Amino acid sequence: MDDVPGSVGTSASFSLRLGQTIFSSASLLFMSLGVEFYSYTAFCYLVTIMGLAIPWSFTLAIVDGYSVLVKCPIRQPGILLIVVLGDWVLSTLILAAACSTASVVDLLIHSDGFHCPPKICSRYQISAAMAFLSWFLSMASSLFNLWLLPSL
Amino acid sequence: MDDVPGSVGTSASFSLRLGQTIFSSASLLFMSLGVEFYSYTAFCYLVTIMGLAIPWSFTLAIVDGYSVLVKCPIRQPGILLIVVLGDWVLSTLILAAACSTASVVDLLIHSDGFHCPPKICSRYQISAAMAFLSWFLSMASSLFNLWLLPSL
Repeated sequence: MDDVPGSVGTSASFSLRLGQTIFSSASLLFMSLGVEFYSYTAFCYLVTIMGLAIPWSFTLAIVDGYSVLVKCPIRQPGILLIVVLGDWVLSTLILAAACSTASVVDLLIHSDGFHCPPKICSRYQISAAMAFLSWFLSMASSLFNLWLLPSL
Repeated sequence: MDDVPGSVGTSASFSLRLGQTIFSSASLLFMSLGVEFYSYTAFCYLVTIMGLAIPWSFTLAIVDGYSVLVKCPIRQPGILLIVVLGDWVLSTLILAAACSTASVVDLLIHSDGFHCPPKICSRYQISAAMAFLSWFLSMASSLFNLWLLPSL
């Protein structure tokens, strides 16, 4: 059985999870420190999804850290399948939230109907960018674990 | 080698491809028959992605139809890998376009800054719904083919 880098219980996976947690938290913070995020459906959706993604990534980061410390990677196909499916569903939801947020921010900036204070608008933009980074890492985790799955 | 329903060269796959072509075309038509789609970035993006998705689905529908007629399913791992990757990339792009469109339409309907004629707004909504259906079918195709890939 090969040790695929990035699969559950390796140090690469620990880094990926840590990155997901950091980017998701940054996205959530930049969005909720803006003053009126609850008046836009897309922004509320992003906050909800990030509220789901942060505990998931954080829990798996702790599991990975523990596995690295005791040098015993997790290799139960059942657990791996749950991790792959969870990552895949979460990455789809994060992508949807990031795209919605980005398109709404773009509309707010470029239309005449709204006025959006530049300071708040750039906060929204940073939040969307962080969400995209979080999506990318989450998808990478899912793919690495999916790669390992058939060999078990 | 099992014949996975939904993989390239089966009648189920032909139905999936036909569905993708129909839903993508419907999404494109409902969007481009609206009058001012090019003033919103998200709508332009949807039109671009649908312009990519329709030829891809239509070509594979023809390939599937031919394979069903001559009763010779395609089983080259290389071709299957290209189909899986292409479907996966396209489904990601379609999901992004559908989410962007849906969130912008939602903003147009519920905000006071814009006024959106109900007839045109409902057209945008139908277009977004069709894009979501197209995403779902495209992802199903990708998963069915991915399922077959390790057995080759």
